[in-house]
Amino acid sequence: MPEKVALIGSGNWGSAIATKLGVNVLKPENGFDPVVEMWVFEEYVKFEGGKWERPARGAKPPEGKTWVDEGYSPLTQVINEKHENIIYLPDIPLPVSIHANPDIKSTVTGATMMIFVIPHNFLAPLVPKLQGAFAPGCIGISLIKGIEFKDGKPILISDLLAEEMKKAEGAPVVNMSVLMGANVANEVAKGDFAEATIGCTDLAIGAKWVKLFNTPDFKVDPVADVAGAELCGALKNVVALGAGFVDGLGMGGNTKAAIIRIGLKEMQKFCQVFYGDRNILSETFLESCGVADLVTTCFGGRNRKCADIFAKCIKDGTPKTWDVIEAEELNGQKLQGTGTSKDVMECIHKAGKEKDFPLMVQIHKIAFEGAAPDTIIDINK
Amino acid sequence: MPEKVALIGSGNWGSAIATKLGVNVLKPENGFDPVVEMWVFEEYVKFEGGKWERPARGAKPPEGKTWVDEGYSPLTQVINEKHENIIYLPDIPLPVSIHANPDIKSTVTGATMMIFVIPHNFLAPLVPKLQGAFAPGCIGISLIKGIEFKDGKPILISDLLAEEMKKAEGAPVVNMSVLMGANVANEVAKGDFAEATIGCTDLAIGAKWVKLFNTPDFKVDPVADVAGAELCGALKNVVALGAGFVDGLGMGGNTKAAIIRIGLKEMQKFCQVFYGDRNILSETFLESCGVADLVTTCFGGRNRKCADIFAKCIKDGTPKTWDVIEAEELNGQKLQGTGTSKDVMECIHKAGKEKDFPLMVQIHKIAFEGAAPDTIIDINK
Repeated sequence: MPEKVALIGSGNWGSAIATKLGVNVLKPENGFDPVVEMWVFEEYVKFEGGKWERPARGAKPPEGKTWVDEGYSPLTQVINEKHENIIYLPDIPLPVSIHANPDIKSTVTGATMMIFVIPHNFLAPLVPKLQGAFAPGCIGISLIKGIEFKDGKPILISDLLAEEMKKAEGAPVVNMSVLMGANVANEVAKGDFAEATIGCTDLAIGAKWVKLFNTPDFKVDPVADVAGAELCGALKNVVALGAGFVDGLGMGGNTKAAIIRIGLKEMQKFCQVFYGDRNILSETFLESCGVADLVTTCFGGRNRKCADIFAKCIKDGTPKTWDVIEAEELNGQKLQGTGTSKDVMECIHKAGKEKDFPLMVQIHKIAFEGAAPDTIIDINK
Repeated sequence: MPEKVALIGSGNWGSAIATKLGVNVLKPENGFDPVVEMWVFEEYVKFEGGKWERPARGAKPPEGKTWVDEGYSPLTQVINEKHENIIYLPDIPLPVSIHANPDIKSTVTGATMMIFVIPHNFLAPLVPKLQGAFAPGCIGISLIKGIEFKDGKPILISDLLAEEMKKAEGAPVVNMSVLMGANVANEVAKGDFAEATIGCTDLAIGAKWVKLFNTPDFKVDPVADVAGAELCGALKNVVALGAGFVDGLGMGGNTKAAIIRIGLKEMQKFCQVFYGDRNILSETFLESCGVADLVTTCFGGRNRKCADIFAKCIKDGTPKTWDVIEAEELNGQKLQGTGTSKDVMECIHKAGKEKDFPLMVQIHKIAFEGAAPDTIIDINK
């Protein structure tokens, strides 16, 4: 029985990952069904003035008409004709194995491997429609970045997904893995060499996911640690604030490397404190999801950049609030590190573990409690 | 009985580390003898024309005269008067605990903790002079960077030191640790925040060294893995060549992070293959000697810089040899990564382990076998 893959989500990252797995399922020796159903939240598109247009957000077609009557085509139809997601991943061909499908139930029917790459709060309304559709023993994987917090505790998105999936009537036990790492959708889609980590409950399942995702330009390695792999992706953004403070103050390369490394160790400690009942491994932090994603974020990301400005402005006597920096620098996007820093701090406070996290505590003090940025290096005092 | 510290070496790094331990021994609660003898290879110095001068290399004083007759002073005397190593670490005050001593035997007499921070080939001629001088049960630590190779196998400098020490008549068994990490002597001496790792045979001994070296601006952590901690410092220079190739070709941040991370994993593997009988720990690679030193070297070091130029010149159709790049860029200094790459490759070949080290192999192919620099990313093929 070949493995049948369903891809739930077709945004920028979902479409990028489709360029990898879509190639692998076409090789008969891999043992996959050669058609991957990709669920697409249906939209309507029209090629006009040399580019693809969508109706304005919230707009409705004229009374008694549909968007098709107005000259628009369903996005799924365009994807399937052009083998390109012209909205979310333009100019990158999708393998012919990828079939865009607006219907969630038929997308997952018979699936033995389900990939979740949607905002996780999109899932709840979908679940009732999945009843009995996917195959018994189906395994799942979350490609969703982020973290939730509740009552001073971190909640894994993969756990939320597993919870939701259990609500589908007749749901088999869905084993959930995660795919995380130092990768940017557009670079992965272009074929730049990148890596990812599969966090899995056991390496036999990890090997299945590696076979699906790994390509010569996308090196995928498994680690038997779901919680560690998933938490790294959120916690790194807090450490990147510290790296940005160091940059903004013009401290040297060794100081920055020290802050990044201490951050990595505190990420590990955070996982151990809050998911001590899971199998948190040192190795996880040496994988792409750990050190590589952290390094990329601390040298190139937006959290680093805004924290650099934050510290520099204080040093120059012209402090700016995070809101102002965000508005000036991010073109409508949001910083993740600042919000996560607050949530992480609440977890640390509630657990009374301040002494175990001197860097995370100091980053919060600088970002939100008025401490001078150069106190970032007071963590060994 | 207070611990008695002897510092064998007084170059740039030896003097820099003296600024840390010299402060710690002065605190009575730490239980150290408050005088640290620092062995100095005696030289003669004279303040002239606004700066400190030494006789030309190899010069001898006039017949029947000494350098003192010629107006020079012994370096040890100047260090002890000024509390500054005016030649090797100018403008940085040394703690009053540090006593420069040109006599090796009196330097180590009664020592219970010996710090080696000299070129390791300086040791052999010193050993006969140490006979019975240091205290029984004395422990040692090597701060010497580098690695030796013999018959296709890596040799730890700390092992060479231990071997030499055994030759001293009546030598106690000297337990050897290492201090390694992402630190640059002048930055550490200035008080920039930096870190180091103590690689030790057991953590009780590690704790003694931490107590000696750790200060608020110099965070020192122990790991019970001498070989891993020591080898990282040499192997990182090979990985930095790979990082430089990626930079020279203008590849993205994720590709660079992937190469650095894969390099870190191969460093770990190299330690396991060639020092499998020692206690190589995953944790070692998360310490300053591992990830932090590697990151610093891959973003800021001379190996990275020269490899960047090497790749760029090939890309532009104007290739340059390593010798030319070295001569143009390093102002008389030598690249370490290229030589280490050759030695590492010989080890891998002899062991028949090419498949375990795809990145190290590819770096060698690019550096010395004419492979195109963009094949750096062929390691997952």
